[in-house]
This record gives sequence, structure tokens and C-alpha cells, in this order.
Amino acid sequence: MNTFAKPKRIGILTAGGDCPGLNAAIRGVGKTAIVEFGMQVLGFNAGFSGLINGDFIELKASQLSGILTLGGTILGTSREKPYKLVAEDGKENHKPEKIIENYHHLGLDAVVCIGGNGTMKTAHLLSQEGLNIIGIPKTIDNDVWGTDVTFGFDSAVQIATDAIDRLHTTANSHQRVMIIEIMGHNAGWLALYSGIAGGGDIILIPELPYNLDVVIRNIEKRYEDKKPYSIVVVAEGIEHPKNQSAANYVAKTIEAATGVETRETVLGYIQRGGSPTPMDRILATRYGAFAAQCIADGNFGTMVAIHKNEVTTVPLEEVGGKLRLVEPSLGLIQKARNMGVSFGDEE
Amino acid sequence: MNTFAKPKRIGILTAGGDCPGLNAAIRGVGKTAIVEFGMQVLGFNAGFSGLINGDFIELKASQLSGILTLGGTILGTSREKPYKLVAEDGKENHKPEKIIENYHHLGLDAVVCIGGNGTMKTAHLLSQEGLNIIGIPKTIDNDVWGTDVTFGFDSAVQIATDAIDRLHTTANSHQRVMIIEIMGHNAGWLALYSGIAGGGDIILIPELPYNLDVVIRNIEKRYEDKKPYSIVVVAEGIEHPKNQSAANYVAKTIEAATGVETRETVLGYIQRGGSPTPMDRILATRYGAFAAQCIADGNFGTMVAIHKNEVTTVPLEEVGGKLRLVEPSLGLIQKARNMGVSFGDEE
Amino acid sequence: MNTFAKPKRIGILTAGGDCPGLNAAIRGVGKTAIVEFGMQVLGFNAGFSGLINGDFIELKASQLSGILTLGGTILGTSREKPYKLVAEDGKENHKPEKIIENYHHLGLDAVVCIGGNGTMKTAHLLSQEGLNIIGIPKTIDNDVWGTDVTFGFDSAVQIATDAIDRLHTTANSHQRVMIIEIMGHNAGWLALYSGIAGGGDIILIPELPYNLDVVIRNIEKRYEDKKPYSIVVVAEGIEHPKNQSAANYVAKTIEAATGVETRETVLGYIQRGGSPTPMDRILATRYGAFAAQCIADGNFGTMVAIHKNEVTTVPLEEVGGKLRLVEPSLGLIQKARNMGVSFGDEE
Amino acid sequence: MNTFAKPKRIGILTAGGDCPGLNAAIRGVGKTAIVEFGMQVLGFNAGFSGLINGDFIELKASQLSGILTLGGTILGTSREKPYKLVAEDGKENHKPEKIIENYHHLGLDAVVCIGGNGTMKTAHLLSQEGLNIIGIPKTIDNDVWGTDVTFGFDSAVQIATDAIDRLHTTANSHQRVMIIEIMGHNAGWLALYSGIAGGGDIILIPELPYNLDVVIRNIEKRYEDKKPYSIVVVAEGIEHPKNQSAANYVAKTIEAATGVETRETVLGYIQRGGSPTPMDRILATRYGAFAAQCIADGNFGTMVAIHKNEVTTVPLEEVGGKLRLVEPSLGLIQKARNMGVSFGDEE
Repeated sequence: MNTFAKPKRIGILTAGGDCPGLNAAIRGVGKTAIVEFGMQVLGFNAGFSGLINGDFIELKASQLSGILTLGGTILGTSREKPYKLVAEDGKENHKPEKIIENYHHLGLDAVVCIGGNGTMKTAHLLSQEGLNIIGIPKTIDNDVWGTDVTFGFDSAVQIATDAIDRLHTTANSHQRVMIIEIMGHNAGWLALYSGIAGGGDIILIPELPYNLDVVIRNIEKRYEDKKPYSIVVVAEGIEHPKNQSAANYVAKTIEAATGVETRETVLGYIQRGGSPTPMDRILATRYGAFAAQCIADGNFGTMVAIHKNEVTTVPLEEVGGKLRLVEPSLGLIQKARNMGVSFGDEE
Repeated sequence: MNTFAKPKRIGILTAGGDCPGLNAAIRGVGKTAIVEFGMQVLGFNAGFSGLINGDFIELKASQLSGILTLGGTILGTSREKPYKLVAEDGKENHKPEKIIENYHHLGLDAVVCIGGNGTMKTAHLLSQEGLNIIGIPKTIDNDVWGTDVTFGFDSAVQIATDAIDRLHTTANSHQRVMIIEIMGHNAGWLALYSGIAGGGDIILIPELPYNLDVVIRNIEKRYEDKKPYSIVVVAEGIEHPKNQSAANYVAKTIEAATGVETRETVLGYIQRGGSPTPMDRILATRYGAFAAQCIADGNFGTMVAIHKNEVTTVPLEEVGGKLRLVEPSLGLIQKARNMGVSFGDEE
Repeated sequence: MNTFAKPKRIGILTAGGDCPGLNAAIRGVGKTAIVEFGMQVLGFNAGFSGLINGDFIELKASQLSGILTLGGTILGTSREKPYKLVAEDGKENHKPEKIIENYHHLGLDAVVCIGGNGTMKTAHLLSQEGLNIIGIPKTIDNDVWGTDVTFGFDSAVQIATDAIDRLHTTANSHQRVMIIEIMGHNAGWLALYSGIAGGGDIILIPELPYNLDVVIRNIEKRYEDKKPYSIVVVAEGIEHPKNQSAANYVAKTIEAATGVETRETVLGYIQRGGSPTPMDRILATRYGAFAAQCIADGNFGTMVAIHKNEVTTVPLEEVGGKLRLVEPSLGLIQKARNMGVSFGDEE
Repeated sequence: MNTFAKPKRIGILTAGGDCPGLNAAIRGVGKTAIVEFGMQVLGFNAGFSGLINGDFIELKASQLSGILTLGGTILGTSREKPYKLVAEDGKENHKPEKIIENYHHLGLDAVVCIGGNGTMKTAHLLSQEGLNIIGIPKTIDNDVWGTDVTFGFDSAVQIATDAIDRLHTTANSHQRVMIIEIMGHNAGWLALYSGIAGGGDIILIPELPYNLDVVIRNIEKRYEDKKPYSIVVVAEGIEHPKNQSAANYVAKTIEAATGVETRETVLGYIQRGGSPTPMDRILATRYGAFAAQCIADGNFGTMVAIHKNEVTTVPLEEVGGKLRLVEPSLGLIQKARNMGVSFGDEE
């Protein structure tokens, strides 16, 4: 842990895909920094772009009131990755040095970077340049290494589960197989949680290689058992041909094999929008407030995290470039199997 | 209008795509028939298939309690169209005569057919065969000719608007164009209402031919006016290439022309699932209760309808094969234009 | 109808209790006035107080963007009734003349007053003073005379029905009688609609005098019929002792008479808060846009209204001081009786 | 830990106040017991009454399908406390011996008791009689000793937060103080979490003695700082006169002292009704599945619990008669203070 005497002026930015709770986290950092520690707070616009271009606004406590419940981010976000080489045209990448320049020019004592895995990687690299950086993990995918949970996840589970709930009535009325594709390129957390909570019959996630023959036999078995319909929840990142969505691939294959009417839904961007759930508001607030505390303590180069329900920190260098995936041995998976859920992986 | 002395035994079926409020309508017909008129009520399973195969259950008042709020239909539904010729294999179609046979064999005095346009067409043909038929219009598309509104529409508007509300936060955070595709092959009612209610910036519906150049210029203009993002609501039935979804076509074209990051969402089946809104529960109840009254009055060959907020009937023969589409001169469209909404049809 | 050549500068205010849709109506008036008719729009703060004190802001089109979905009113509201005599202290009331003075001093060509019955009464009185006034009816109570529906009602029905839906599970689990009190001092519309939509077993509204003995016998009868629980929906304005809430009075009496565990809930202020439903957003937009049209047409001294689903106007002098109550002969009431609903008025 | 060879026949009951997730827990126990361990499962009706009277149904796997998302409990519940002396009439209490008799007569190998603190106390006493008992903690109050969280809590936080969200718009429009009373006789968890998540300005809970003068000064200070309104969240169990609700007492006192219009809402029973949130569905499933595992393992006399996000057990004898209250030193409370929340306890 570095030591640092008197932080005065801090920056906040939100980077990567947006998710519910970003404003709650900004408020958590900002109000704690201002009210508890008397710091001055700058909000950088559009993720790392704001830091590169020196594009910011000062955030006063009054501007942080009333944003707790708002979806999105008042600072905007972008996919800007300042360390990514612009290989095509051979130009040199001066973005990191612009960030360092702005950091010093603005007299910043620390920057809080709110984002997912990519953001934490950048945060670590900036930390290695000697900047005082704190990361806060957010993503609806819940796949940031080093923390038990990210904010945004609870809200996305709520939205996805609500959608699955709705599909039950149509599936039942038409005696159909309904496929729903849930966000998650690498990690199946969102499909797993919403699938179990929504009473999905079959759940396919990237971490558990599936066999469509098993899925098909399972659906046929349900049919024989007079179960009139089936709900199949698939993460977008499961193995599938590139020219189709995962849902479309699974749907087409099942319908061809079983002859049962099969329909797919790709839930898409509504999973990351809207007002955060109460628990995400609280989690983002806890993260944000703790990040401000870390600055006061000079605990830099770290990401705030939840371990076993307590807020703590992990070194950014341990986080970057890793993903927290669903373990096939997870207790919840076995419990779901006992409820009758198939993961398409049985013999 | 036929006259009929004392109906005693009636059938109910739900046909076509499911939508919120079907159970409320079944309850409306059934309870009124039983409680008010002392009729016996049979529920036919899976739409017209149940009538063809004599597959039914008797519905007692107690079975109709507690279903008001349930999505889907306790009777199941199907796309079975008994008058459709099975041309491929040259077989004769005996389905209508099976229906007539079952009708008489079961001693039915009337059948209530709950469905959309296709169902009303079949209902009319059965009526012409001499059966006593009442239609009740349901569909999330709101496009049944002869009534101001169908049940299911209000619920679908709610779901679609909620989705559009969620997209605003992501669109804003990322300064993107977000395209959302709403159900509606022929009629744009659902896209129109949810688009206006959800604050869509551009709304494309089948009834108003659009010009993508106009759409693109509109988005560029918004950009110049420092409006950081745009929401484009498209009905699935707008003109577009067959190998893409409407949303995908519009998104790809806009992104290519403007260079602004554009993302699409196809809302899909969640639009027709889940518990009906209060107003759909009440509308379906009114329709159902009035259908039972029509049976008691011997008012057959009719569809119950809402005209200027009053329940009435229209002859089935006037309904069949027609669609109620959005009129381009609709007052709401002009009002939306004044709010800044574009329909992609300007000069 | 007055005639008026070229209105240029108009005022808007929201008065009385707040309800969902006020901002949608403000936006509807303002955007139409600005975009379609090139008017200048002033927003008066806190209802008629703003008009009395000359407290206003100019509303530009950009300020009216993004408020469609927001609950409450950006202008604030108050219960200020400028024509009410301050009898206690014998002081003269100079408020109306201040309003007239401000109206002329600010060069106003018209004022749009958005409110309920009390607001329409004041609007009429101001109209009689020679000011150009348009009223827009809003209230969750749906009791403004002269229109078929007010905005705010659909949203309140949604909230109240959601609450009744929740009570079913507790009532059933505990085999209790649950009483829920819904807003409505004089008119029972909200209790009636949410009661029917929520599957209430007994609904008591001010317009249908009830007999608690009938209610009690009904509950006992349900018990004998093995219906395990009862939901009683009461409007706050039904006859009851002054020192208790209506819900508490009904609950205590039922429990004492039947011995069945009875619990009450007074739903309270949550019925008027939050984002409007899609249909209220659209209705408020229609009203607002039409009010701007009325100004352009010089159609003053009128309230915009919905008659049989079409937007029209009624003279303010016909509206003031009257209430639109539930007619006991309303078709919906008979239909609800057939569903098994009791209104406590039999025998 | 007892050892037990081969449990075959188990009972389940739900006791105390109902809450969202009971059916998910019943399903979790039942399906795991049947599918994984081949047990036979009896469901006792109406809490301990069912065990006293031998009133039960056999639960087959098929009956446990489709109940995951339902509010309430398919088994019913009651406040029956079999060990409570019937003091009034001096009669002896034979209920425990009837339970023991039924337990043996029915050949039960274990009983799972799902409930709150009172239920765990009874569970412990039955365990001491030599019966094989497993407890599962449920309550919206989150105050069961020995576990980090109970199911039902997340759902109640959601409902209460949604209500507080709604009050903001009315409070703001009218510039009022709004008081909302949240369930919680002894523990302030629900008021604390929903108060923080809902952006409450002042939160009063039983564990933090409050001073109304501090509350009043805080509201006056907000007024001076041009904050136009205040939301006060109070737990029902804070100190207050017996003849008023907590909300009414606080509201009356604040209005009298500050002259600011103050309104109260008592949220009541809607906090415990309706479909559980996804996270409560999952938590209840985990608890239920683990309880079945405990039976298989012969781990009796225990309550399943979550410690630091892992399912485990605690001895029932450690749980009974204790409450898990909010610690004034809780980190979340300090974080909330930094957000500007007052707990009415400052100097």
C-alpha cells in the first residue's frame, strides 16, 4: 500500500458498457469525497476519452443529489482503450502520455475508474505509470476477477428474469419451446441466475460445454412426460456458428429434430438499461464510498471488491486480464439440477 | 340477427397468437353465462383443434376464479385454421364438417371464439354454416376491423414502452442510435403508441412509407443540434429486405451513412406474455360478459366490439378479412410530429 | 367562443394535487405552442401562486425534452385557491386582481390551467374576468365533470391494482379478510376500476350506499363456500365514523362480527407518484397539444376533454363546481356483479 | 450432530407471517428430497396447526412445478405456537404431544419448518423432544439470528423502495415532508435498506434512538439550503405513543414544529405480498435444497443459514429467542451518513 498525505483533487470516470448503478457509484464516490474528506471532485466525460482530452466538469455535492435512482451515467461512457495500439496506420499512440500529462496538469491526486475487466486492465496500466488509481467493478456480466459481485448484475438479473417469466405464458398457451438469449460473451452468470430464477428448463452457458443431442432428448423426454412446453435459456457466448445468433442456432436445431414449434428471443440491450434495483443502488454506494475512503487512506493501485459480503480491496495487478467465470462445481448448479434443470451436458 | 330461445350449453375457445387478457375474457364469458344465465360452459382446448377433435373440459364457476390476472390461456391456443385447404397432398379437408358434427353432437347452443383477424374469419365461415357464433377480438396488434380497441394491446404497449424507457439510458450514456423493433406485421399501432409513450425520436410504421434518407438526415440534424442520442422505433412489418430483420436493416444503413454507433434490439415474444394490465383485465371482462349477454339475446353471427367506449356488436361478415390500420391522418400522428417525432416520411 | 387573432405569449401552470402525467401535459402544450405555432411559453411556479406572485420561468423547447416520463411536475403545484375568501381575519382578498395585473403586465395572450375540479372552477372565474383561459383536466380520481377521462387515472389504477394483486397472496396464505383503502373522497372510480381489475371480492364506493350487514353475510357465505379468503376494496370516501379511516372501520366491524382475522391497508400517497403509464403519457400529450391548438384557434373559456375517445372542448362554465361520479347503473358494475363482486348494497 | 441412516418420509410446513419465496423454498426442499434422495414428502397445512391436527397432503414432484414464482405459500400458514400456554382458561396444552404423536404415527423421519424467529424457537423445542427438525429462516424483517440474510427480505426491499421512489415526485411537486412507515417491529433492516436505496433523507430505526428535535432541525436546515422537500423513512417499531402509528406521530410533530406541509403513508401488507424477486427465488431454492441435504446427512436440530455468502447450518438452540438487529456501527450506516442521510441521532 502506498502512503499519501493529503489528497485534494480527484477524478471520476465511467468506462465500457453502461449498466444500472453507475450514477449511484459516482454519487457514492463524490459525496463521500466531498462531505467526509473535503476533496474536490472532477467528473471526466465519456470514459478514458475525457482523461485523454481533458474534458471534464467539476461535480458539486448538489449535482450528485437525485442521481441515485437514474440509469445510465451522467458522465457518459465510451469503449476508448488508451493502451490499444492503432496498428492499421502505424501511428504512434500518445494517449497514455496525454492522460499522464492531464493528470499532472490538473493537479489530480487520484482517479477512480468505474468499469469492467477492460477498464481494470487500463486502470492497472495507468497505475503502473505512477498515477494513483482506484478501480470500481461494474458489469451486468458479473465476471470481474477479484470480487464476489459487481453492481449492475442484480438489475440485469431482474430484467432478464422478468422476460423469462413472460415467456412462460406464451410457451404454455402454444405448447412451444421458447429460446431466450441472455447477454454474456464469456461468463454465464446472468443466464445462470435469471435462468434458475425464471424457472428455465434448460440453461446453456459458456462454462459448461453442451451437447445439442442431450438438449433434444431432454425436450423429447419432457414432451413424453406431458410437460407441455420448455423454456431454454442460452447465454450469447455459447459455442455456435458465427452467422447465426446462439438462440437462432439452438432454436433451428431443436425444431428440426423434434418437430415441436420453437421460437427465439434475443433480449438485447434492455438488459443494461433503466433504474437500478435497490440492491444495486446500495452496492454501488458501498463501492463508491469505500473508493473515496481508499483515496483518503492512500490505498492506490487497488480495486474495491466484495469478499464474503464485506467491502475490501484487491491489487489491480491481480485483476487485469482475468475473468471470473462460473465454476462447473458451483453448488447452485447442482441445486438447479435437483430442481430438474438441465445444462445440456449430461451423458 | 338470428333469434334463439334458450341457450343452455355453450363453448369457448381461444385461437391464434396468445396475448394478455385471454383468461380474463374466458372468465368474463363463463361466469356471466353460469351466474347470470344458468348456462353450462365447455372450454375447447387449443383453439379450433379442440372443436375439430371434440377435445374439451367443462368449466365450472370455481375453475374460473383466480384466473383474471394470469397471462396466457387456460384453454391453450393454436394456429389451426379449419377452412385452410391442405393443398400439398390433395387431401380433402373434413375439418369444418367435424366441427359441425361436434357442435350438434355435444348439443351446443353457441360457441364464443376469442381471437384476432384470422379467428374472426373462421368464426364468420362457421356462422355461415348455421352455427351460433360470437367473436371476441383480441390481439396485441390492435388491428381487428370493426372495433376501436382489442384487449392485449394495452399490455403490449406497457411492455414495449418499458423496454424503450430502458434504452434511453444506454443510448444517452454511449451517445448512440438505438433501434428497437416492435411487433406488428401489417399494423403499426403498437409501434406508434409505445414509440410516442416511450419518447421515440423516429417511428417507422407500415402505414406510413418511409425514406431512409429522411431518417438519416434527421439523425444528423439531431447530432448537429447537440442532441446526444436517438431512439428509432420500427414496426417489424415496415418494408425491408427479407434476409434481415427490419431493425437490422435500419441499423446497418444508418450506421453506414452517419458513422454514429448504432445498435438494434428485436423485442420479440416478451411483448405478448405476462399478466394483463388492469385496463386489459377490465376490457376483456367487459367483452366476455357482453358475449354471454349476446348469447342470451340470440345475437349471433356477431363480434363484440368497443365503439366510442361503449360495448356493442358488429356483424362477423363485415369483420372477416379486413384489417384496421393506422390512418396517416390520425390526430395523434400530427400531435407527435409537434412533439418533434419524425415518421421518416417528410420531404 | 372568443376570437383572437395572434396569440404570442402563453402561460402554463399545474394546480391541486400532483399526479402522473403533469409533465407530459406541460410538454404537450409547450412543444406544440413553440414548434407548431411559434408562441413563447412561460411556466408559472406552484400553481396559481406563481400567477399571483409573478413567479415564472420561460420554457424553451429544449427544457421540455426528456420530461415526458417523469412523475410530478417541473413547475411545482399548490392548493392555492385565489378566489377563496380569507374570512378569519376579515382581510380583503386581492389575489384575483394581482393575477389580472400580472396577466396584462406580462403581456400574456392565454393561460393553460392544468388541474382538477377546483382548478377548473378557478379557471372559469378567471375566464369571467376576461382572461383567455384553457383548462386541462387531470386527477387520479377521474371525477372532473365534462370529460370521459382525466390523465393520472390510468397510472393510479395500475398502482392500486398492483397493490391488490399483492394482497391476494397474503390473504390466501393466512385465510384472512384483507381490507384495502383506495383514494377517492367523492368518486369511486379508482376503487371501482382497481377493485375489479385486482379481483376484489367486495368493493365499496361512495356512490353506492353500503350495508355492513350485507358485507358481513357475504364474507360468511364465502367462508361457507370454502373460499378461503376475501379482499375488500374500499374508497376512502365511503360513509364511516370520523375518528377512524374507512378501512379501519370496515375491518374492525367485520372482524368483530365474523371472527375471521381481518387486516387493513391504507394505500395512501404512492397512488399519485411515479412515472405515468404509457396511456397517461399519450392522453396528457393529446390534451396538451389540443390546448395549444385551442389557443391558436381562440377557443377560450374552455376545458379540453375526451368524449367517446375524441379530443374536444367543453365550456368551463359547465364544468365548474360539478363532479363526475360513478352511476349506479353503469354497465361495468352489473358485469362485475356477474363476476361475483359484491358492492355491499344487495337486499 | 445426530446420525441417521435412511430418511424416507419427511414433512414440510410454513409458519408465521407469509413472505415472498415460501413456495420457492417448499419446491427447493421437495424436489431435492424427491429427485436427489428418493424421499416421500408431506406438506402440512397452515403451519404447526397441520402438524397438530395431522392435516397434510402428499407433495409429488409435479405439484412442485410452476410454484417457484408464486407469492404466498401453497401450504398456508398460521401464527399457531404449539408451546404457548393457554393461560386464560387454565386448560392444559396437549399440542406438543399431538405433534409428537403425529410425527411417529405418520412415520416421519424429519420435518422442515420454514419460518421466522418464533418458528425457530418452536423448531428448537420440538427438536429437544427428540424429533428430527430442520429450520429454514424466512422473514421480510431479516432479523433471524444466526444467518446473514433471510429470504423475503430482498423482495420487501424492492417493494418498499418502489414506494419511496414514488413519494419523491409528490414530495417535490408539493414541497412537502413525506413520512413513510416501513414494517419492522424490532429490527430496522427493511427501513434501512429501502430508505438508503430510495434516497430517504432521514431514516429512523429502532436500533438507533432518535431525537425528534434533531429531525426537525435537519428538516429546517434542508429548507434553508433550498432543498425543496424531505423524505423521512420510519420503521414501525421506533419509539412512539401507543395511540398513533409511528408515521403519524412523526408527521404531526414535524408539521407542528416546522409549519411545513407533512403527509404520512403506512405501507402495510403490500410489503409481504406478490412474486418474489429473482434473488429471493434463488436464495429460497438454495436454502430448501440444502435443508434436504441436511436430512440426507442426518444433520438435525439445525437451521440452514447463509454465512458470508455460503450455505451452512447453525444449531437451532443458538438461534431461538434471539434477534439479529442492525448494529449502530454497521459500515452501511456510516456510508449513508456521508451521502447526507440523517438517522435523527446527531448531537
